[in-house]
Amino acid sequence: MVDTIPSYLSGQWRTGDGDARTVYDAVTGAAVTQIASSEAHLAGALAHARSTGGSALRAMTFSERAAALKAAAGALAERKDELYALSAQAGCTRADAKVDVDGGFGTAMVYAGLGRKGLPDGTVIVEDPAPTPFGKQGVFLGQHILTSRLGVAVQINAFNFPVWGMLEKLAPAILAGVPTLAKAATPTAYIAEHAVRIIIESGTLPEGALQFVAGPIGGLFDQLDGQDSVGFTGSAATAASLRSHPRIVGRSVHFTAEADSVNASILGPDATPGTEEFDLFVQQVVTEMTVKAGQKCTAIRRALVPAGRLDAVQDALTAALGDIVIGAPGAEGVTMGALVGTDQRDDVRGRITELSKDAQIVFGDPNTVDVVGADAQAGAFLSPILLRGDATSGSAHDVEAFGPVATLLPYDGTAADATAQAARGQGSLAASVVSNDGDFARDTVLGIAAHHGRVLVLDRDSASESTGHGIPMPQLVHGGPGRAGGGEEEGGLRAVYHHMQRTAVQGGPALLNSLGH
Amino acid sequence: MVDTIPSYLSGQWRTGDGDARTVYDAVTGAAVTQIASSEAHLAGALAHARSTGGSALRAMTFSERAAALKAAAGALAERKDELYALSAQAGCTRADAKVDVDGGFGTAMVYAGLGRKGLPDGTVIVEDPAPTPFGKQGVFLGQHILTSRLGVAVQINAFNFPVWGMLEKLAPAILAGVPTLAKAATPTAYIAEHAVRIIIESGTLPEGALQFVAGPIGGLFDQLDGQDSVGFTGSAATAASLRSHPRIVGRSVHFTAEADSVNASILGPDATPGTEEFDLFVQQVVTEMTVKAGQKCTAIRRALVPAGRLDAVQDALTAALGDIVIGAPGAEGVTMGALVGTDQRDDVRGRITELSKDAQIVFGDPNTVDVVGADAQAGAFLSPILLRGDATSGSAHDVEAFGPVATLLPYDGTAADATAQAARGQGSLAASVVSNDGDFARDTVLGIAAHHGRVLVLDRDSASESTGHGIPMPQLVHGGPGRAGGGEEEGGLRAVYHHMQRTAVQGGPALLNSLGH
Repeated sequence: MVDTIPSYLSGQWRTGDGDARTVYDAVTGAAVTQIASSEAHLAGALAHARSTGGSALRAMTFSERAAALKAAAGALAERKDELYALSAQAGCTRADAKVDVDGGFGTAMVYAGLGRKGLPDGTVIVEDPAPTPFGKQGVFLGQHILTSRLGVAVQINAFNFPVWGMLEKLAPAILAGVPTLAKAATPTAYIAEHAVRIIIESGTLPEGALQFVAGPIGGLFDQLDGQDSVGFTGSAATAASLRSHPRIVGRSVHFTAEADSVNASILGPDATPGTEEFDLFVQQVVTEMTVKAGQKCTAIRRALVPAGRLDAVQDALTAALGDIVIGAPGAEGVTMGALVGTDQRDDVRGRITELSKDAQIVFGDPNTVDVVGADAQAGAFLSPILLRGDATSGSAHDVEAFGPVATLLPYDGTAADATAQAARGQGSLAASVVSNDGDFARDTVLGIAAHHGRVLVLDRDSASESTGHGIPMPQLVHGGPGRAGGGEEEGGLRAVYHHMQRTAVQGGPALLNSLGH
Repeated sequence: MVDTIPSYLSGQWRTGDGDARTVYDAVTGAAVTQIASSEAHLAGALAHARSTGGSALRAMTFSERAAALKAAAGALAERKDELYALSAQAGCTRADAKVDVDGGFGTAMVYAGLGRKGLPDGTVIVEDPAPTPFGKQGVFLGQHILTSRLGVAVQINAFNFPVWGMLEKLAPAILAGVPTLAKAATPTAYIAEHAVRIIIESGTLPEGALQFVAGPIGGLFDQLDGQDSVGFTGSAATAASLRSHPRIVGRSVHFTAEADSVNASILGPDATPGTEEFDLFVQQVVTEMTVKAGQKCTAIRRALVPAGRLDAVQDALTAALGDIVIGAPGAEGVTMGALVGTDQRDDVRGRITELSKDAQIVFGDPNTVDVVGADAQAGAFLSPILLRGDATSGSAHDVEAFGPVATLLPYDGTAADATAQAARGQGSLAASVVSNDGDFARDTVLGIAAHHGRVLVLDRDSASESTGHGIPMPQLVHGGPGRAGGGEEEGGLRAVYHHMQRTAVQGGPALLNSLGH
């Protein structure tokens, strides 16, 4: 019998008492842990956050919050090996685990730095460079301030980034002075729980600033109010359901979503075989297909290439994908791990079937894969799958297979058609343009910008420092319009401001001057 | 038989062909016009906006859009007398009409100025002061840009400000390069229609940039998508219903609401009878109760005064309210007009009954009023009604009577209790603090800020230039958390940015440098 993952609520680790759900090792298929419901304690946890956690955070200056956040991130960094070990059970190679774990504490450290340097030594942000006068004498003016919301930030995280996903949401809330209730996704809740445990044991954050729930959150939304917020990462369907909850719409609870998207990478017309950009494109598509076994919401799903170059790109991609070694994390030579579980594999196989309706599989077999150091069927292993479509293919613009799957698609080589094809995704988190043609890159970026939260341009000059198509950066907005959920996370201090109330204050100069101190 | 108000859709004035609803003169009760459905033409209007209107606006630079907006505002200013005359039929005195009409074109002119001075001479806004480098060589950096959304701004306006409400939403959309479909509220649609007609006749905006619908918009929401937005002003119940529309939640349509709120004005402990602040408070409460017959979503509904001063404030308020002359706009000596219609009067009377459950009416009779130049029953006339509650009164914090109605309530004279009492409104658009005690004003402002979109501090020094508790300014945020809808309008250029997509762009310095030009 395996242990049940506890939640951390109202200052106590509590094991849920509802029906338990078993979580299995992604590599061996053995039971890892159980998840049970803690719903009975959630109302108390909200009250605890609003009183104890919120009061404590709001009593700290921005600088003090930044220092606490830095210390919490440091505690995670010190014990990162424990998180890598747990991540392997979820199918992650060491490199995959670093994206999540190092990405998580790294993001928190960046936020600590932004908070220390970019926020005042107090608790109120005065936003405008100067007050707006409403008369000639200057005795009555207006200025905006930002103050901490008095509620709870409910953060609902996805399974693929149990550490990074939690930290990128937690860090801005801490800086803003708003307590967090983090909800982990079931398949990797044991990793998130351990990260929370490390932070709680470090004593770096005030009690109540971070609470954690491992199981379902059934009645939680019925308790939310206008000072609370929900930050959701997951499927578009779940986002839509949560967003229309009567309490969310009735109390104007702030709701942001980061959802599925069918991200495109566009090869420029200049990037013929033999150019550095051609090779960068191929390498980037392979990276996005195989890191985290393609379980990234920013991963490239659509590889758009000039129509006449489909064969050349297909040849290069299949050659590179043939070098990928799939197997147990840590086993000899393994460069790609497992999906998070066999349910997820079943789901991805189903999506590949949908994609196959109007595209052909040109690399990989969804049902067969050679695996090193593990049993291919007991573990959630899946071959990288490359499909190839044509101008009439519709599914590739609509169906997201959340695994090592991408589709090669043609466009006519112009920025206008690249824009039109990318827009068929109906809003995405990230896109990339791989081109050394400055005009093409500029026109394509400006063409697709309205449909994207982030666009990366890769060429021979920028490649050495490029952070990669699929990696959100804490300084830059993460989120996208339409299908991608319409939300905005990160983006530097913008994410902190999202947790604060903006208030226009009107009055005399002495009053306005007294607010920032 | 009166005329039916047409809609302006796809470049044509079209009279609706569904069942018609009659609109009555607020003063005489006579039929003014009819409103009929144009639903059959709405899908075409969205397509017209997305293609013709959006393309034309996006082809203009910010400076060109600002110039067009200024010209449109100028056309309204030239023909303002026509709008004043129509406003009188809706019960507005000349002063009331100016708040709406001059407030409307004035707001558009402020936006034109902000656009001319604060936006670049191009179509793309580069947002960060400098790009963020992601490596030591500086060959790969990140920066945010804002580009025009490619959809339609659907703007649903309330009856009380047919001109201002439409213009404060239209102006930022025009600057952002996004076409507007404005939906008027039925009781004053004939005023909004005439304002639109003036703008269309002026030829100042490109065709498709402004369309107008007078009747119901039944199936419109089923046609919206992730590049569209909805800006709603009206009741919290309608906001909740629209916000949970499957298309809004399913396509991440941007939705902002400005809804009911139960705004408070707080008299400072220092402001004893005989001080200037005492008089300013009384005068401000009377103004907010009577301008537009109290039909302002920012009007003072709760007058919070130190408990020992209830009698003194009540005496001063009843004396001042006794001087108000109610009657037909333009009739001799009239200082307060009618509500928009008898339905609205019935609604307000119902709310007064609810408020009366735990507060006493201390001025006015909801069923009797002396009226100059009109028939008190045929027209929608209502006496100002002042209620007085105590610390146990709950309704006054919850029930909004959208007319000349306010409730006098006690607090204990501390900033902490003023904050606690104001917070019982669960989120408001505006509050004011009337005090010459700087510490009290500061503590109260910071205490109530999280619950408010705007807070005004009034004292003897600032009074001469004060713009007033109830007047949103284009430079300052209008909107509030929780019950007030959780939205944000105006706030200077922020409102323009709300119509644009923020995109993080990563790449080399030459690429980033090329985006703003």
